[in-house]
Amino acid sequence: MRHDATAAEIDAVVRTINELGYEARPIPGKMRTAIGLIGNDGKVNADRIEALNGVLEIIHVSQQYKQVSREWREEPTIVTLDNGTRIGAGEVSVMAGPCSVESEEQIIGIAHRLRDAGATILRGGAFKPRTSPYSFQGMGEDGLKLLARAREETGMSIVTEAVDPESLDLVVEYADIVQIGARNMQNFSLLRRAGRAGKPVLLKRGMAATVKDLLLSAEYLLAEGNGNVILCERGVRGFDTHTRNLLDLTAIPVVKSLSHLPIIADPSHGTGLRAKVIPMARAAVAAGADGLMIEVHPDPEHAMSDGAQSLYPDQFEELMSQIAVIAEAIGQRMVAPLPAVEGAAAAG
Amino acid sequence: MRHDATAAEIDAVVRTINELGYEARPIPGKMRTAIGLIGNDGKVNADRIEALNGVLEIIHVSQQYKQVSREWREEPTIVTLDNGTRIGAGEVSVMAGPCSVESEEQIIGIAHRLRDAGATILRGGAFKPRTSPYSFQGMGEDGLKLLARAREETGMSIVTEAVDPESLDLVVEYADIVQIGARNMQNFSLLRRAGRAGKPVLLKRGMAATVKDLLLSAEYLLAEGNGNVILCERGVRGFDTHTRNLLDLTAIPVVKSLSHLPIIADPSHGTGLRAKVIPMARAAVAAGADGLMIEVHPDPEHAMSDGAQSLYPDQFEELMSQIAVIAEAIGQRMVAPLPAVEGAAAAG
Amino acid sequence: MRHDATAAEIDAVVRTINELGYEARPIPGKMRTAIGLIGNDGKVNADRIEALNGVLEIIHVSQQYKQVSREWREEPTIVTLDNGTRIGAGEVSVMAGPCSVESEEQIIGIAHRLRDAGATILRGGAFKPRTSPYSFQGMGEDGLKLLARAREETGMSIVTEAVDPESLDLVVEYADIVQIGARNMQNFSLLRRAGRAGKPVLLKRGMAATVKDLLLSAEYLLAEGNGNVILCERGVRGFDTHTRNLLDLTAIPVVKSLSHLPIIADPSHGTGLRAKVIPMARAAVAAGADGLMIEVHPDPEHAMSDGAQSLYPDQFEELMSQIAVIAEAIGQRMVAPLPAVEGAAAAG
Amino acid sequence: MRHDATAAEIDAVVRTINELGYEARPIPGKMRTAIGLIGNDGKVNADRIEALNGVLEIIHVSQQYKQVSREWREEPTIVTLDNGTRIGAGEVSVMAGPCSVESEEQIIGIAHRLRDAGATILRGGAFKPRTSPYSFQGMGEDGLKLLARAREETGMSIVTEAVDPESLDLVVEYADIVQIGARNMQNFSLLRRAGRAGKPVLLKRGMAATVKDLLLSAEYLLAEGNGNVILCERGVRGFDTHTRNLLDLTAIPVVKSLSHLPIIADPSHGTGLRAKVIPMARAAVAAGADGLMIEVHPDPEHAMSDGAQSLYPDQFEELMSQIAVIAEAIGQRMVAPLPAVEGAAAAG
Repeated sequence: MRHDATAAEIDAVVRTINELGYEARPIPGKMRTAIGLIGNDGKVNADRIEALNGVLEIIHVSQQYKQVSREWREEPTIVTLDNGTRIGAGEVSVMAGPCSVESEEQIIGIAHRLRDAGATILRGGAFKPRTSPYSFQGMGEDGLKLLARAREETGMSIVTEAVDPESLDLVVEYADIVQIGARNMQNFSLLRRAGRAGKPVLLKRGMAATVKDLLLSAEYLLAEGNGNVILCERGVRGFDTHTRNLLDLTAIPVVKSLSHLPIIADPSHGTGLRAKVIPMARAAVAAGADGLMIEVHPDPEHAMSDGAQSLYPDQFEELMSQIAVIAEAIGQRMVAPLPAVEGAAAAG
Repeated sequence: MRHDATAAEIDAVVRTINELGYEARPIPGKMRTAIGLIGNDGKVNADRIEALNGVLEIIHVSQQYKQVSREWREEPTIVTLDNGTRIGAGEVSVMAGPCSVESEEQIIGIAHRLRDAGATILRGGAFKPRTSPYSFQGMGEDGLKLLARAREETGMSIVTEAVDPESLDLVVEYADIVQIGARNMQNFSLLRRAGRAGKPVLLKRGMAATVKDLLLSAEYLLAEGNGNVILCERGVRGFDTHTRNLLDLTAIPVVKSLSHLPIIADPSHGTGLRAKVIPMARAAVAAGADGLMIEVHPDPEHAMSDGAQSLYPDQFEELMSQIAVIAEAIGQRMVAPLPAVEGAAAAG
Repeated sequence: MRHDATAAEIDAVVRTINELGYEARPIPGKMRTAIGLIGNDGKVNADRIEALNGVLEIIHVSQQYKQVSREWREEPTIVTLDNGTRIGAGEVSVMAGPCSVESEEQIIGIAHRLRDAGATILRGGAFKPRTSPYSFQGMGEDGLKLLARAREETGMSIVTEAVDPESLDLVVEYADIVQIGARNMQNFSLLRRAGRAGKPVLLKRGMAATVKDLLLSAEYLLAEGNGNVILCERGVRGFDTHTRNLLDLTAIPVVKSLSHLPIIADPSHGTGLRAKVIPMARAAVAAGADGLMIEVHPDPEHAMSDGAQSLYPDQFEELMSQIAVIAEAIGQRMVAPLPAVEGAAAAG
Repeated sequence: MRHDATAAEIDAVVRTINELGYEARPIPGKMRTAIGLIGNDGKVNADRIEALNGVLEIIHVSQQYKQVSREWREEPTIVTLDNGTRIGAGEVSVMAGPCSVESEEQIIGIAHRLRDAGATILRGGAFKPRTSPYSFQGMGEDGLKLLARAREETGMSIVTEAVDPESLDLVVEYADIVQIGARNMQNFSLLRRAGRAGKPVLLKRGMAATVKDLLLSAEYLLAEGNGNVILCERGVRGFDTHTRNLLDLTAIPVVKSLSHLPIIADPSHGTGLRAKVIPMARAAVAAGADGLMIEVHPDPEHAMSDGAQSLYPDQFEELMSQIAVIAEAIGQRMVAPLPAVEGAAAAG
């Protein structure tokens, strides 16, 4: 309450809290009175209270999110894919591939190299949210078909982005993990649909999103019954133009203390610069990430998007060997590599 | 180019620019060589160039947006509504109303007061994007019907938000202006659909969006043939928790120098605090805004959302008289008030 | 407390609060226990409590600042200068002048024009904090002497920046207001010295400073016995490079609700662009600023610093007439202009 | 140039560049003309050009800093301390100790444990810049004497912060490395004095400083002849209140590509939370940091400042063993530990 709140104003707040079905406990102080709300079940309409006269500030002691919290579920969520990759089980899994699917040759060629280097999940955009309407927007369903072909050939699981209801339905049909990108992190309509789609979801942090915002967006997925959610730190908006975004790796241990959901990092978008991807990928693993998403292109100089932040295949192989040592140093290990091609079964 | 770029690397950049169909002009310097790209029509694939070895940085001298720019169209865009309100014509127009439509009594009652105070456009959310899945999500189509009823009664035009394809189609059917909210500013699929819908669009700046990002999102609308676009500054993400967002009023003159589109300000979301809405609304007009969007609620203490930032009707009336003087001081004027109720015709 | 805090941990917090001499009041909740600290006099060592096991978060209900707060002093502080200008008394005062003092002709010439347009305080840097060591660093004491000469000639009061102990002592000797710049807002040693110097202080907000940080820095001045403090919003660091800084005009009403100190705005540094200074100066007055600080240069194209953000004298005159109307519209007025030159007495 | 710049305006820019002693090269484009400035030696007064009519934007192709750049000096700077620690030589060195020196027992006790765990540099504040005037401000010279005693006993080098000319002179007398804190990063007067003092300087990045700002502040030190500069990333201001600051680890590889100076990370201030210090310290090493600065307190619960972010000695020991493995994984190694106490000589 404000320091000059009247007794009547304090009473009004108490009454409103009672009306909403909770217990109010005034805590008088030297300068002002605070009013505790007891029994908050995460559904309090704070707007009603905030609007009362004499209210200085609403301080949330309990969080607004529920099912994503550690308090709701103590043990970590483990997302298990058809090819055996488990995310969140103390193993570092790697999603790698080009920014965009461009051709059969490109995606299948790179998939083989990535699988051989130890990646078990293939990324590749078929629907691309681009800042400019004049940029390449992706191959659409044809791209999804090529991703499925690559899965058949290599046994890798597939992660790719959905941007609207139509693309979501297609992505659910073809991919193993549905990606919701940073720009759609608060596209709540899309989140709800993804929550009902029955496939694991990779939810990327928005550029202006706090960790709490990210967790609340994930709550949309869990509230629809989908507990197979993987979070992804990919950089927030910063003031320094040296990098494309500001990769907030501290979000990894912060999320791990607040939530049971696994979290990975995307240093490709997080930095926007090829030469910074390798050190920041290593740093993410050292910070405790459950995995990485890395852009690798067979020929970055001719990539149709994000070439400047895509690794050369050679660089990716070197990175994989470095992070294996780091994972071990902190008591984790790498996801087991996929068996040689002959044994690869097409995943669901 | 990097200072240690080789002649071969410089040649590769020149060749790539030529391949893309533009002229390359190397500009040797003391420390490094710059390469100018001549003839940029806004469609250059900078990714291809950025990915080349030896490239330090791409500096965009021309902008990526085209149709929204002052260079494309010198004279200001004026958006004209059915009830005669013209936005962008040197008149300050005011969109006011509750955060959410809650009942017939609420929306029609407040509409009369707002109209009488000089507002010509009624706002009210029927589809609410909420950070938490457990918050009130709006009345949906029933809310739209109530807005249409309020229009019939008062002659005000209607602006309300669309959040996905379904709600967009409904909003187009009922409203005069389709609002795309901050969280959907880069929902490019929704932008394209709004661009094709044939109704004026109010596009709010995203919380992490630069002015350039905002203009590029508007470009999606114009690229689909919809030139009736109104931009809205509503606060970006800041580091100070005293206010909900950081209202960036300088964006108003910045947009006006770069683009021919009108721009208004939303100090209700921009500050999140009722007591700050009035000074910042005045400031927005003084900065040259073409209009305001203001949340007013007949009874903020019982509002179902955003009560803490909603003005009391009395405050709104006082605000209107203050901004009229400010508008005049800077050579603008207020939009003419709507005629008394008897004469009001139902708009579009 | 954390939700899994043990009774022993809760006891330890209670004990520590008692050891520190305050009363502890545990408030059990459904999910966790909160512990209120009663009797906070602004001197609690929160670090000691925060360090205890089981503590999730310290929530400050009372503020850490005291003497600058509205709760300490209800009525506004009015800073009165020798030439009669009163800052904080419901009048808009204008500090104007070049970024740097460059020559006698420059500073005296411009001072006459500014005084004639209604400014009563002359600004001009003699000690310049520059990001690069190779930029012009100011004329030093010679610049101060020229400012004093301009005061003698025009009757204007003088405000100029001090950057270290030596320059502070000199500035105190020559100027009417000592400016502490944004980069030194948390140079606490300089603040203490300024607090003891007995001259009014203009304290600019740092680029990463919250309003609370600004008020705590002002508290250093008041704690040394100097109550003549004027705050200044001059833009914080933002992510959009269209402007040099992000002018946070909402800080004006926020400061006014929290503190009794006057606050002005500096749209020259706040935007960094001449064409944006005029609209943002108007906006600052409309937001309730007690004054403005504006860079004006007789010949911006040859200015030794900040030419791009300096107004032409003509523009300044136009601005003065616009803000006079705005001040009146919101129930304020302009500071009375200084009498014609013959009557001007040299100020203290 | 603006797209509507006249030939006369273009000429004026060319003339001004020539007046300043450089060559101007106009580069006509389809939409606008760019003008290249050839021969930039880092001393161009961009303000003069920016102020001209028709100028849209100044784009710096060469950087404003010189001596700190990789282009000025290709090989890395190695800062060598009296006890043999070399910073920047491919070895990870660790500066550890309490936030503040509090007593002889405290500082000497902890120094022994830190030395035994492998730290070779002891940190401890004697002059504390505190946001609030009512917080503990440090022991002053008595604290420095205790640090010197700890050096005698353990052989560790000493790093401690200077906040003004007086404390700088004292710190130079007692310490091996002079720390300039984040709040003083642009206290240029203090930087110049530190540049002339002849001791290595640890320069922390300011909360709103870009990497370029940091390098320009370092340039002040080198311009005064002091090449023994160590940079430190310690978190910038972010919008998420989960952590005290936003640790920008990408700044490490960015600095390394732009400058020859070593850079370390301070995850204690960077996160503000004990539980986040360990993962972020590991991440900093994985990102390529030349060292770490870590707050460790024998009894964090009774620390006089920053207790919540101080490690327990046990945690520090565990951290040291983890980062040793990570350093090796990326081709670096830990600085050799100091010899047992009997052999320790008092350092300079």
